[in-house]
Amino acid sequence: MVKASRRGFLALGGAAVAGAGVGGLTQRVLRAEQATTTSDRVAFYGARQGGIATAAQQRLAFAAYDMTATGAPALKTLLQTWTAAAAAMCAGRMVPGDNDNPAAPPADTGEAVGLPAANLTITIGFGPSLFDDRFGLAGKRPAALADLPRFPGDQLVAADSNGDLCIQACADDPVVAFHAIRNLARLGRGAAVMRWSQLGFGKATSTSAVQDTPRNLMGFKDGTRNIETADDGLMNEHVWVGGEGEQAWMRGGSYLVSRRIRMLIEAWDRDYLSDQEAVFGRQKVSGAPLGGSKEHEDPNFTAMKDGEPVIATDAHIRLAAHENNDGIRILRRGYSYTDGMFSESGELNAGLFFIAFQKDPRSQFVPLQRKLSANDALNEYIEHVGSGLYACPPGVSGPDDFWGSALFA
Amino acid sequence: MVKASRRGFLALGGAAVAGAGVGGLTQRVLRAEQATTTSDRVAFYGARQGGIATAAQQRLAFAAYDMTATGAPALKTLLQTWTAAAAAMCAGRMVPGDNDNPAAPPADTGEAVGLPAANLTITIGFGPSLFDDRFGLAGKRPAALADLPRFPGDQLVAADSNGDLCIQACADDPVVAFHAIRNLARLGRGAAVMRWSQLGFGKATSTSAVQDTPRNLMGFKDGTRNIETADDGLMNEHVWVGGEGEQAWMRGGSYLVSRRIRMLIEAWDRDYLSDQEAVFGRQKVSGAPLGGSKEHEDPNFTAMKDGEPVIATDAHIRLAAHENNDGIRILRRGYSYTDGMFSESGELNAGLFFIAFQKDPRSQFVPLQRKLSANDALNEYIEHVGSGLYACPPGVSGPDDFWGSALFA
Repeated sequence: MVKASRRGFLALGGAAVAGAGVGGLTQRVLRAEQATTTSDRVAFYGARQGGIATAAQQRLAFAAYDMTATGAPALKTLLQTWTAAAAAMCAGRMVPGDNDNPAAPPADTGEAVGLPAANLTITIGFGPSLFDDRFGLAGKRPAALADLPRFPGDQLVAADSNGDLCIQACADDPVVAFHAIRNLARLGRGAAVMRWSQLGFGKATSTSAVQDTPRNLMGFKDGTRNIETADDGLMNEHVWVGGEGEQAWMRGGSYLVSRRIRMLIEAWDRDYLSDQEAVFGRQKVSGAPLGGSKEHEDPNFTAMKDGEPVIATDAHIRLAAHENNDGIRILRRGYSYTDGMFSESGELNAGLFFIAFQKDPRSQFVPLQRKLSANDALNEYIEHVGSGLYACPPGVSGPDDFWGSALFA
Repeated sequence: MVKASRRGFLALGGAAVAGAGVGGLTQRVLRAEQATTTSDRVAFYGARQGGIATAAQQRLAFAAYDMTATGAPALKTLLQTWTAAAAAMCAGRMVPGDNDNPAAPPADTGEAVGLPAANLTITIGFGPSLFDDRFGLAGKRPAALADLPRFPGDQLVAADSNGDLCIQACADDPVVAFHAIRNLARLGRGAAVMRWSQLGFGKATSTSAVQDTPRNLMGFKDGTRNIETADDGLMNEHVWVGGEGEQAWMRGGSYLVSRRIRMLIEAWDRDYLSDQEAVFGRQKVSGAPLGGSKEHEDPNFTAMKDGEPVIATDAHIRLAAHENNDGIRILRRGYSYTDGMFSESGELNAGLFFIAFQKDPRSQFVPLQRKLSANDALNEYIEHVGSGLYACPPGVSGPDDFWGSALFA
C-alpha cells in the first residue's frame, strides 16, 4: 500500500525531527516507569513460564501462528526475537528497538504506552506440526504431544484450530494483552503468520480458592475445585513436566490444551433453574454442590433422595471430579469470549475459551474429555468449535536465554 | 431443543428445592449489596440518559436490534420491560423477576452476580427504520434522523449496520457490559432480535482532559480535543437536543452515530513514525500537535517550515478541528475492537468502534465526515465497514417512566 502523503515525507520529516526533542525523550522512558509500580508485574525470567501458575488475570488474548519460514535457524531467530520482546512487554516496557526514529516504523505499535504492566504474562507453546520435517525437530517431538483424538460431538473449525505456535497473553488490562499478540505477530513477519486469535473478555475460571470464583456465561461459578496453583505439590503432580521418560527440553514445562467451546446461550437461558443446577451438579448462585450449602465443600456423590442421586449421574461435576477419574486433575484457566452474533439466527456467538495445563494430555485431558463428550449433561448446551494442543517449554533463565532454547542444544 | 436429563426433573427438582433455603436466599440479595459500593454506580434516572455525558468507562458492549413484533403496544411493552431491567442492572441488581424458582428459567442469566455495578450505563437509541409504518410513529420521526449519505470509501456491511434499536452498554467491567446486552436480547424475545453486536475491549477516546487520554490501536492518543462532558455549556451547544424545531419527544436527548472503522493495522505498522505523525498531525508518544510540545495545547494550523505547513493540509486533526469547520464539534466516545483475524490474509480484524453524540447529525457528523472521507490522510489506513444512526431520547424520570415514553404520549 503506497501512502500518497509520503510524497511530503522529507519536509514533514524535518518538522517531526524538530519536535522530537520532546517526543523522543518521552519514548525512551520505560512504559512502566510512566504508569506502573512493580506490584503489577509478573517476573518473566525463571524456571517456569508465567501464565500457568500465575493467579489468573482478568483478560486474555490468545493467538496461534503458523511458520512461513523453514529451517531451524529461522525458527531460532524468531524465538529469540519474540522472547526479548515478551520480556520487555511483561516488564511494562515498549518492544525493544527503534521507537523514536522518524524515518523508520516504530518498533512498538504504541497502544499500550502509558498503561501499566497489568500483570501481563506471555506464554508460548509449540504445536505438534512444529515437529514435522521443516525444522529438523522430528526427533524432539514429545510423546505426550500426540494429536488429540476426535471426540463425540466435536464441531471443530480447522481455521480456528491448531497451529505451529501459540501465544497466551493474560493481563488485567485487555489492551495490554492484545498489544502482546499483535506485536509478536508483527515481529514474526516473514517467518510466521497468525493463524487464528481469540480475545477472552472475562476471566471465567478460578485458579485459587482465595479469590472469588468467577462465573462463566452460563452464570455458574467455574473452577471451584480447580488445582490451587499456589500448591507446589499439586502442580508438580499434575501440571509440570518432570523427568520421567519425557523429552529433556520439556522438563519444567507443561502441555496446553485449548478448546473454543461455544455455548448455546439461548437454549440454556430457556432452561429451568433446577435443570441448570442438575446439569452442573451445583447451585447456581451459591456455587455449593447440590445437597450441600458451601461452595468449597466436597460434593457428596453418594447422596440419594427419593431413590435418585442428588447429583445426577450425568452432572458435569460428577463426571469431571478427580474422585471419579482415578485422581486425574488438570489446571483450567479459561476465559469467556464473544465474537458478536450469527446474523442468520440472531444468536450470540459466545462461550468459554477453555485452556487447561497438564503434565500429559494423553492421561489427563484426553480421558476426561472422552468421558465428558460421551456423557456430560452439559453437551446439550455446548459445542466444541476450536481446538489446540501445544507443548509449553520451561521458563527463560535470563536475558541470554530464549523460549525453547533447549530444542536447539 | 429438548434436554434429556429433564426426564429426571421432578426428582431433581425436589433436591433443588431442598437446597433452595440457601441458594434462594442468596439470590434475593441485591447483586450490588454483595459486592459494590455506591461509588461505582451511575444514576439511571434523570433528565438525561447515562452513557453520554458520563466520563467514558473502560469497556463497551454495543448491540443493534430489529423489531420482529409490530404495532405500538408491542414496542411500548418492550421499552417498559427493557427500562425496568436496565434500571436494575445499572444499580448492580439482577434482572427483575423470578430468580429463585426452580421450576422456571431464572430471569437473570447470572454471569454478573457478584460483580460490582462497575459504572454501568445503558443507553438506548431509535433507528430511522423504527419510524416506518409498523408502529404508527412515522409522524414522530425527527428531521435530524435523516439517513446518513454514502461517503467516499465506505465499505459498509449491511448485516453490521443500522437496526431499529440500539443499546450502548458501557462499564468498567466487560462482563457487566456484555451481561446487559445479552439480557436485553433475552427479554426482547418475541418482540425484537439482535441484529449485530460489537464488544469494545478498550476505551479509545477521552471525554475529559482530567483523565489520561487513552490510545487507539494506531498507538495515538484519541480525544485530546474532544468535548469536555463536564462542560454544560459545550454539551448544550453541541450534544443535547434543545427545543428548536425538533420533535418534542427528543428534547434532552441526543443523536448517536456509530461507525465500525477497521484499521489496516499491518500497513499502518509499516509506516514511518514521521509519516504516522504527519497523518494525524500529532506526535505519537506525547500527543502534542506537530510543532508544539504539550498534548493539550491548541494546534497551530498556520505554522510553516521550509515552505510546507507543519501540520499537513490532509492531517487528520486539521480536517477535524472545529476551527476549520465553522465551529462544528461532536462528542466522541469510541472503543477499540478486535474480532480475531482474516484467515485468508492473516491480518487482524481490529480497529475503532467510533461513537459520536451530537445535536443534529445533518450539521455535525455528516459535513465532518464528508470532509474527512474525501481528504483525510488517514483514509489510506482505515475502512468504514459498519454504520448506525440512532435518536437517543432523554432520560427516564423515575420508576413509572420508561425510555421513549413521550413517543406514545
